[in-house]
Amino acid sequence: MAERVVPAGERRRRRPTKQGVVLSEELIVATALRLVGEHGAEALTVRRLGRALGADPSSLYRYFRNADDLMLAVADEMIGRVLRDWRPSGEWRADLRDLGLRMHAGALSQPQATVLGACRVTGREHEIRAVEAALGILRGAGFPDAEAVRIYHAFIDTTLGFAALDAANTTLPAPARAAEERVWRETYADLPEETHPNIAATVPMLAASMRGSAYPTALDMLLAAAAARLGRLAREP
Amino acid sequence: MAERVVPAGERRRRRPTKQGVVLSEELIVATALRLVGEHGAEALTVRRLGRALGADPSSLYRYFRNADDLMLAVADEMIGRVLRDWRPSGEWRADLRDLGLRMHAGALSQPQATVLGACRVTGREHEIRAVEAALGILRGAGFPDAEAVRIYHAFIDTTLGFAALDAANTTLPAPARAAEERVWRETYADLPEETHPNIAATVPMLAASMRGSAYPTALDMLLAAAAARLGRLAREP
Repeated sequence: MAERVVPAGERRRRRPTKQGVVLSEELIVATALRLVGEHGAEALTVRRLGRALGADPSSLYRYFRNADDLMLAVADEMIGRVLRDWRPSGEWRADLRDLGLRMHAGALSQPQATVLGACRVTGREHEIRAVEAALGILRGAGFPDAEAVRIYHAFIDTTLGFAALDAANTTLPAPARAAEERVWRETYADLPEETHPNIAATVPMLAASMRGSAYPTALDMLLAAAAARLGRLAREP
Repeated sequence: MAERVVPAGERRRRRPTKQGVVLSEELIVATALRLVGEHGAEALTVRRLGRALGADPSSLYRYFRNADDLMLAVADEMIGRVLRDWRPSGEWRADLRDLGLRMHAGALSQPQATVLGACRVTGREHEIRAVEAALGILRGAGFPDAEAVRIYHAFIDTTLGFAALDAANTTLPAPARAAEERVWRETYADLPEETHPNIAATVPMLAASMRGSAYPTALDMLLAAAAARLGRLAREP
């Protein structure tokens, strides 16, 4: 587990700040997540966070080593919020599907933080809980350890990759987003059948599909391949 | 096709800059790609690019509307470089696999530009060629149009999602990357079997897997699911 900068006991003896705020790791992380959502990556400095909390910036170092350490705590909190309402049913494929969809939706509810945090390994409480749970689902389904790890890695990085991609798209300035929509409805729609027969034959479907995320399709394909593999394993001697 | 800011004929009449550089769209894009690789996103301003080219910044507006337009040209050039050496064999699954692996590798060879460009729709020459080719592979394999579009969307966004994720990881500052490696080898490795049986049972494999990209696994699973779907379609009346 990540080493604490200041032992918990010592931190507990802290007093309210001059503005009367009682600092806690939870309050700092929640405030950081809100700031990133409102102002983007630049908001994640100890100085700005101190101002938002009405606390001396130096007091934050009792909780976090530096801005990157805080970023990892924010990323972990996002995982924690997803896990909070997740109840596995015991059916491996449905459970992974549900977990993936919840993680993707959770990531898109905080696109700015996702752009910063999706690629990070937090090594913290909630991430560890998610890894343990997902590996447990796959091993419990009957996948041998090596396959469980391989499939878990593909599952989690497909989820985080789509989260990063879809979140980055969400955070584009409005004119850039509008221009991209037009690319499908105009540039692609105008390509002649003679030179671009495959686009011309499918462009209404293409434009419609591209307005949404392909994550549910990709997730279902990944889980279908995993299920087929499990079926083959069961038939092998 | 994207509208030109200045008609091509007029641009062709331009003279060398005072430093003797003859500007062209190709030269500007190649220079922009090099600058982003060396200095990151901040390098992509018309002013810095003009300085690197020894050209008056204003002369660049003959080729690109603004920095975002230039960014899209850079993203499109990266697709062009991937397609340059790609020769489809006619076997749909091998061809998509090869295309995906080449796109992922190409993206990681320019991680800074990938972080900026992976989520973008360029609507330009090379992207259009890639969309047409990939749809052609899927329709040629026998997928009905709606399935070809659905699978293409999942394929391309899985590829771009992993590209974005793996590139973002590559561009982390060295201390953050080193800390993440330690998380698997230390934090996860130290979790006791009693509380975390699934991690404890698999952590050497987990740490080894996490050092690389799960993209090849995810791609193979996606293609396996597509192949199974094609097999079912062939058996249906």
